[in-house]
Amino acid sequence: MDVVEYRPQPDQYVWTFGGVAPSHHVSPGTVLRLWTEDAFSGRITRPSDRPMDVLDMTEVNPQTGPFFVEGAEPGDTLALHLVDLTPARDWGASALIPFFGALTGTDRTALLNEPLPEHAWIYQLDRARGTVLFEARRGQLQIELPIAPMLGTVGVAPAGREVRSSLVPDKFGGNMDTPEMRAGTTCYLGVNVAGALFSVGDGHYRQGEGESCGTAVEGAMDVTLIVELIKGSPTSPAPEWPRLEHDEDYVVIGSSRPLEDAWRASQVGMVRWLGELYGLDPLDAYQLLTQISRSPLANVVDTNYSAATKIDKALLPAADAYGGMHRHLREQAATLI
Amino acid sequence: MDVVEYRPQPDQYVWTFGGVAPSHHVSPGTVLRLWTEDAFSGRITRPSDRPMDVLDMTEVNPQTGPFFVEGAEPGDTLALHLVDLTPARDWGASALIPFFGALTGTDRTALLNEPLPEHAWIYQLDRARGTVLFEARRGQLQIELPIAPMLGTVGVAPAGREVRSSLVPDKFGGNMDTPEMRAGTTCYLGVNVAGALFSVGDGHYRQGEGESCGTAVEGAMDVTLIVELIKGSPTSPAPEWPRLEHDEDYVVIGSSRPLEDAWRASQVGMVRWLGELYGLDPLDAYQLLTQISRSPLANVVDTNYSAATKIDKALLPAADAYGGMHRHLREQAATLI
Amino acid sequence: MDVVEYRPQPDQYVWTFGGVAPSHHVSPGTVLRLWTEDAFSGRITRPSDRPMDVLDMTEVNPQTGPFFVEGAEPGDTLALHLVDLTPARDWGASALIPFFGALTGTDRTALLNEPLPEHAWIYQLDRARGTVLFEARRGQLQIELPIAPMLGTVGVAPAGREVRSSLVPDKFGGNMDTPEMRAGTTCYLGVNVAGALFSVGDGHYRQGEGESCGTAVEGAMDVTLIVELIKGSPTSPAPEWPRLEHDEDYVVIGSSRPLEDAWRASQVGMVRWLGELYGLDPLDAYQLLTQISRSPLANVVDTNYSAATKIDKALLPAADAYGGMHRHLREQAATLI
Amino acid sequence: MDVVEYRPQPDQYVWTFGGVAPSHHVSPGTVLRLWTEDAFSGRITRPSDRPMDVLDMTEVNPQTGPFFVEGAEPGDTLALHLVDLTPARDWGASALIPFFGALTGTDRTALLNEPLPEHAWIYQLDRARGTVLFEARRGQLQIELPIAPMLGTVGVAPAGREVRSSLVPDKFGGNMDTPEMRAGTTCYLGVNVAGALFSVGDGHYRQGEGESCGTAVEGAMDVTLIVELIKGSPTSPAPEWPRLEHDEDYVVIGSSRPLEDAWRASQVGMVRWLGELYGLDPLDAYQLLTQISRSPLANVVDTNYSAATKIDKALLPAADAYGGMHRHLREQAATLI
Repeated sequence: MDVVEYRPQPDQYVWTFGGVAPSHHVSPGTVLRLWTEDAFSGRITRPSDRPMDVLDMTEVNPQTGPFFVEGAEPGDTLALHLVDLTPARDWGASALIPFFGALTGTDRTALLNEPLPEHAWIYQLDRARGTVLFEARRGQLQIELPIAPMLGTVGVAPAGREVRSSLVPDKFGGNMDTPEMRAGTTCYLGVNVAGALFSVGDGHYRQGEGESCGTAVEGAMDVTLIVELIKGSPTSPAPEWPRLEHDEDYVVIGSSRPLEDAWRASQVGMVRWLGELYGLDPLDAYQLLTQISRSPLANVVDTNYSAATKIDKALLPAADAYGGMHRHLREQAATLI
Repeated sequence: MDVVEYRPQPDQYVWTFGGVAPSHHVSPGTVLRLWTEDAFSGRITRPSDRPMDVLDMTEVNPQTGPFFVEGAEPGDTLALHLVDLTPARDWGASALIPFFGALTGTDRTALLNEPLPEHAWIYQLDRARGTVLFEARRGQLQIELPIAPMLGTVGVAPAGREVRSSLVPDKFGGNMDTPEMRAGTTCYLGVNVAGALFSVGDGHYRQGEGESCGTAVEGAMDVTLIVELIKGSPTSPAPEWPRLEHDEDYVVIGSSRPLEDAWRASQVGMVRWLGELYGLDPLDAYQLLTQISRSPLANVVDTNYSAATKIDKALLPAADAYGGMHRHLREQAATLI
Repeated sequence: MDVVEYRPQPDQYVWTFGGVAPSHHVSPGTVLRLWTEDAFSGRITRPSDRPMDVLDMTEVNPQTGPFFVEGAEPGDTLALHLVDLTPARDWGASALIPFFGALTGTDRTALLNEPLPEHAWIYQLDRARGTVLFEARRGQLQIELPIAPMLGTVGVAPAGREVRSSLVPDKFGGNMDTPEMRAGTTCYLGVNVAGALFSVGDGHYRQGEGESCGTAVEGAMDVTLIVELIKGSPTSPAPEWPRLEHDEDYVVIGSSRPLEDAWRASQVGMVRWLGELYGLDPLDAYQLLTQISRSPLANVVDTNYSAATKIDKALLPAADAYGGMHRHLREQAATLI
Repeated sequence: MDVVEYRPQPDQYVWTFGGVAPSHHVSPGTVLRLWTEDAFSGRITRPSDRPMDVLDMTEVNPQTGPFFVEGAEPGDTLALHLVDLTPARDWGASALIPFFGALTGTDRTALLNEPLPEHAWIYQLDRARGTVLFEARRGQLQIELPIAPMLGTVGVAPAGREVRSSLVPDKFGGNMDTPEMRAGTTCYLGVNVAGALFSVGDGHYRQGEGESCGTAVEGAMDVTLIVELIKGSPTSPAPEWPRLEHDEDYVVIGSSRPLEDAWRASQVGMVRWLGELYGLDPLDAYQLLTQISRSPLANVVDTNYSAATKIDKALLPAADAYGGMHRHLREQAATLI
């Protein structure tokens, strides 16, 4: 397998999906060994940092990429397999940012309240124990939490000539902020433009479902992934919404507002996937989903909210999504370790 | 422990929370051995049943109760511990009902589309294997699914002189339709009226998160539960929203529309619970939630949608919610088996 | 015409729709001369009143009624014609109440912000000029505003055995808080229980569309109305959502959350009304609505939000809704002045 | 005044806000005499046209522009005064497009229903009578409706490096689809990029509030407008959301989902505007808005929904927004006729 290594310098960070020239051209089958800066662009380093003093809000959530995938055309499906996610620093950061987060007014849930106080939290990483340390700002409570590395942001260039901020999740993927995007995951995204032009970023050392305050345990990440391409065909149409596959689960991510619409999109996406996998009639799939889908929220803080529909493969007959692509990529990944 | 057994006759079914005289007066500490009819009032029995032909929509979701708890007063907290939930029939039923469900227009998401077709599905129960059988109506697909019995509806009489349909979830509990309400769960509900007047119903042999089509694998249920009462005090205020406790988790259920508001209510409810348990400052609790909360949806189909915020106790320091009430009830429950 | 006069004493105030014995039995055609207390139960009288000190939140929005209409049965349509609304006091009151209003967190849009400050505003009425006086609390700005008396709350007993707080708007009418409910309006409500059991209250001397802060210029009101009944028939089905008729407009009010669903309900309600009036196909009605409907919001603060779809009769061919009921009532009203 | 005339050819149509080189550079004070193609790119011409057969969904809502305004920099406010809107064809078109519109499932309110039937309606314009003719597709109903020309789409390049489809409304203006955007309106938009790069399009010969089915009476338009620029300063900050001024009203347009958030944004925008105009404290402005704001919906069909907060100037003390800019532009406009 070809291997490309890339650690972007600050002037190479990318802030959008679409609208940017590719950093690399890669062939399907290539292994990428990447480094991603954290969503704060590395600017929050101490508990005493006041977010609005140290952050540049025009430079948040830097992406590594974009990568032009040779042969990718609109209608195809890009498959990105996350082989490994390893924290690249010994600490992560989280923060309360004014008018951002699920439990405060925002520019859209526009209210007359003052913003909540600004605060930063720094989580020290213990690599040996595989934990980060929560330290309350008021009082003495400290809690060791297992790390659970994930990528908040994985996306391709959008359709319809659009260029979207790296803060946005939508059909092109982007800032979905779902803990389902972890090592071992294959992410399927519909290709909208020649070359797909995907990028990744926004490593989280751990995150709850919903990302309540708007920022996870944000941290620079060493990312290993494999790129693959599934050419479009009547039996392999590009998915409308991002699909994820684990060894254990199928997942579809919908992103919209209000939150029920994000979830509905993920549900209809799963009805379609079950149709593709089993020839299941849509109403039978609806019935089956009703009894077996898990619905972990992803984020309720971004420009669009993101919700997942997730099915345990063990409940279903064996099937090979995309011709066994995930299994193939797991085997490839195993050769890399 | 006192034991009360009750299998209501059809003319004893109750269709509301509030507004109904109690079926029984019980003391805290009482064990109830109950039978609950299914949400269809037992009227869907065959795959060929057309829901609108066989259902009486004025008699759906029958409740068993209500129970007047001696000594319960507004400001107190009712604790209901579900000791055992056993399917009372050898089959369960689900159905597509016109203009009901998450992936169709409804009377409120009012559209001009025709309703989806009516359909019923019957799930045969295999007690030995602990499964129900999904049978596709079109095509041959059959899937054995493990049972996971739960109660869709657990509630007390509402505040503010209201009487609510048993189809409604809100602060008083009610039709929350969360798979978290299972054997082993302690449900804490704020008491609004003298005697609390709680009832239970809506057994599901299994249900996905969101209850997409609006009806789970609905089935009559044998229910064993223990009633306890926590008198209100400054250190034990009644919860605004229902709280659940498992051996493994704390859970808060919010119910509202749009779905983000249901979830926000559950999140703020958990911020408060963490404050009670650990003296944690609200902003520290918000931060901690961001990194550890799980957010499985309950229902996206009822009059209010319901969402859960759930925390794995293993992530937190040891604590005794309500003076160790759950542990106490688990011990009591163990003596019953 | 029979005339009934009724000025309830405080112990006769009613706080719910449904669940209360009628204050009077009246025949269709009866004129009611009523007095309604304001939504604060008259407890806010000075700008220095702190709402949470003087209000009893279990006694807000008192209703005058309920009235049992002889012959009214489920499936019928109640027609209430507002003949006259005259302020019954020389001042009105408005207030910021903690965690209530559109531009603040609430118990459902649950946030971690502190509540906005409590404040009261008293508006002096100048009967000769027909104005109320806005006086800024900070700074010197005073603005005379024309009065535009309306009733925030008009409703019947709900369906489905429910009893709802007088703070709630829904299909039964209730606390819709629409400025369209003014002298000259005929309000059509579907009857859910024998006698309809309607009540009225919540006079506003004026209100903007949306009732942003949650309380209008609230004031006691002298109300004259005429009761009529339209028996149900295939050509006169009871409306699912409240319909209003002015000399100039047809209006349908939908109430739900999120706000788009309230509006969708009002839109589909108008599609049906256009179908009844003109035999118009639903898709043609949808097209026509697209070009002519006005959509003034009613409230974005109550348990359900309320939105109106409104059509200028001058744009439509002449038609006689409900057999010319509104015209008939206007003629009756003219004899009363 | 400099006058620029521009009738773009099809290969000059623009499909986005941002991301496109300017068609013209213009100085503040310039008069533009423009022609805009309809939102269907002129492809629906007969009632028998099936939208999905004749439309190219990658080429809808063509814009005329963008115009680079000399001297415009981020932080400034662009003022566009619509002098005249005259239908440029003798007919307009509307259509039902599958999975688009407020009363049908969409890609986001994702449901399992089949799409509503496709249909087109053609409205013949009678210039002498100033009307367009609605003709029902089923039955004989015909209704003459007064024309009320407006522009659905007026916007500048977005902030944050984004490029947005011309179908999107947001802070940059865009596809707000509000009937308030008519001849006589001054539209104030915050400038995000050097030159502002504004464009206009999407003429409607008339439209109801909400644009229910998703398409108004769409028609090519002759547009005359004057461009002005207000340099940013502490007393003239750029507005966060689009502001409109008529001789009679102030209007703020918010765009988001759910609909209550669009409206909240417009309300908070008006609280701020009242603060700028009268030095009014935010809570006093909130109180005043509650009693006087009108809230006509704009669209409930686009990627973001748009809602207006509107205040009748006659209710307020005299004030000169932006130093009397609107009056100045009205005087300029008068010289053009």
